[in-house]
Amino acid sequence: MASPEIEALVQALARLPGLGPRSARRAVLHLLKKRETALVPLSRALEAVEARLATCGICGNVDTSDPCAICADPRRDARALCVVEEVADLWALDRARLFPGRYHVLGGRLSALDGVRPEDLRIDSLIARVAAGGVDEVVLAMNATLEGQTTAHYIAERLEGHPVRLTQLAHGLPVGGELDYLDEGTLAQALRARRPVM
Amino acid sequence: MASPEIEALVQALARLPGLGPRSARRAVLHLLKKRETALVPLSRALEAVEARLATCGICGNVDTSDPCAICADPRRDARALCVVEEVADLWALDRARLFPGRYHVLGGRLSALDGVRPEDLRIDSLIARVAAGGVDEVVLAMNATLEGQTTAHYIAERLEGHPVRLTQLAHGLPVGGELDYLDEGTLAQALRARRPVM
Ligand SMILES: [Zn+2]
Ligand SMILES: [Zn+2]
Repeated sequence: MASPEIEALVQALARLPGLGPRSARRAVLHLLKKRETALVPLSRALEAVEARLATCGICGNVDTSDPCAICADPRRDARALCVVEEVADLWALDRARLFPGRYHVLGGRLSALDGVRPEDLRIDSLIARVAAGGVDEVVLAMNATLEGQTTAHYIAERLEGHPVRLTQLAHGLPVGGELDYLDEGTLAQALRARRPVM
Repeated sequence: MASPEIEALVQALARLPGLGPRSARRAVLHLLKKRETALVPLSRALEAVEARLATCGICGNVDTSDPCAICADPRRDARALCVVEEVADLWALDRARLFPGRYHVLGGRLSALDGVRPEDLRIDSLIARVAAGGVDEVVLAMNATLEGQTTAHYIAERLEGHPVRLTQLAHGLPVGGELDYLDEGTLAQALRARRPVM
């Protein structure tokens, strides 16, 4: 069989989502055959990210700088905050350049089943950002799941009395659907038709 | 959007076979969230392979040593040589531990269409290995394609007069099938039922 180093590379790739042992092996063969154009660039890219990986102290995004590129961008509208469960959701929305404001990543959703409580999420820091002023609108962009909507309601309650417009993504998201899997058209429509919370 | 470093990593992964831009993005998110258990191990594995990558001077396999682990393994039967088109085919056969002998990788197949001639493949070095003696059997494990079979016939002619038993994989391979895509059961059967050439 292949050497321990090559086997280790196959194993490391096979653990990525979307890659099984078989496709990892094909990917490694490709890397071995294209040392200069595939293996070396991938290795350098990983090193660069590894060296600078940081969680944004403001919004919870992961990036290669803190604050992240979005929080540091003066062209982004600081008066609108889009609250998402996961970094993947931020990426899904931002990839389509749908939202001109900034983000707040909770790091999950409230779940009795999984024992996730408010203090396990970045909710206090969200309230603090709003309380600090300068925010006009908070878009609650949770998944259209029971837990996502429970989380949205909890945050809506916590923000009661703050002078901000609370909105949520338009229904029209498929029930049980997760933001990160939706096409950009659906996301765009849901964002355009966002409406005040209750 | 994400930083240039993260975008570069997405691009590098998206170029791997089996990964598109979407799955590359999901893989990168996974790497960012699991720095110590996913990103760092993958980065170290790539570095280790990059530093030691070599093409075996004996058989043409790619490995982290030259001679490769197979050629250097004294337990492998040096009297049986399995000739394959590509390194991927060697891996496919060896992954299933089907063949106890050693290999010879041609680096392709003869093709009038693609202008691949005998001197473009590692055929002379195969003849030299056989001519050096100590080889009893040469298994021609080309793909069951027109070009694969043309290549097998060409090698059979070149080896005429050498005191070796020439065999080929049993038919039973699906017509047009490529070794690297077959399940291990099919490969095992084809190898077990291998038969003399002509
Ligand atoms: Zn940020
Ligand atoms: Zn070798």
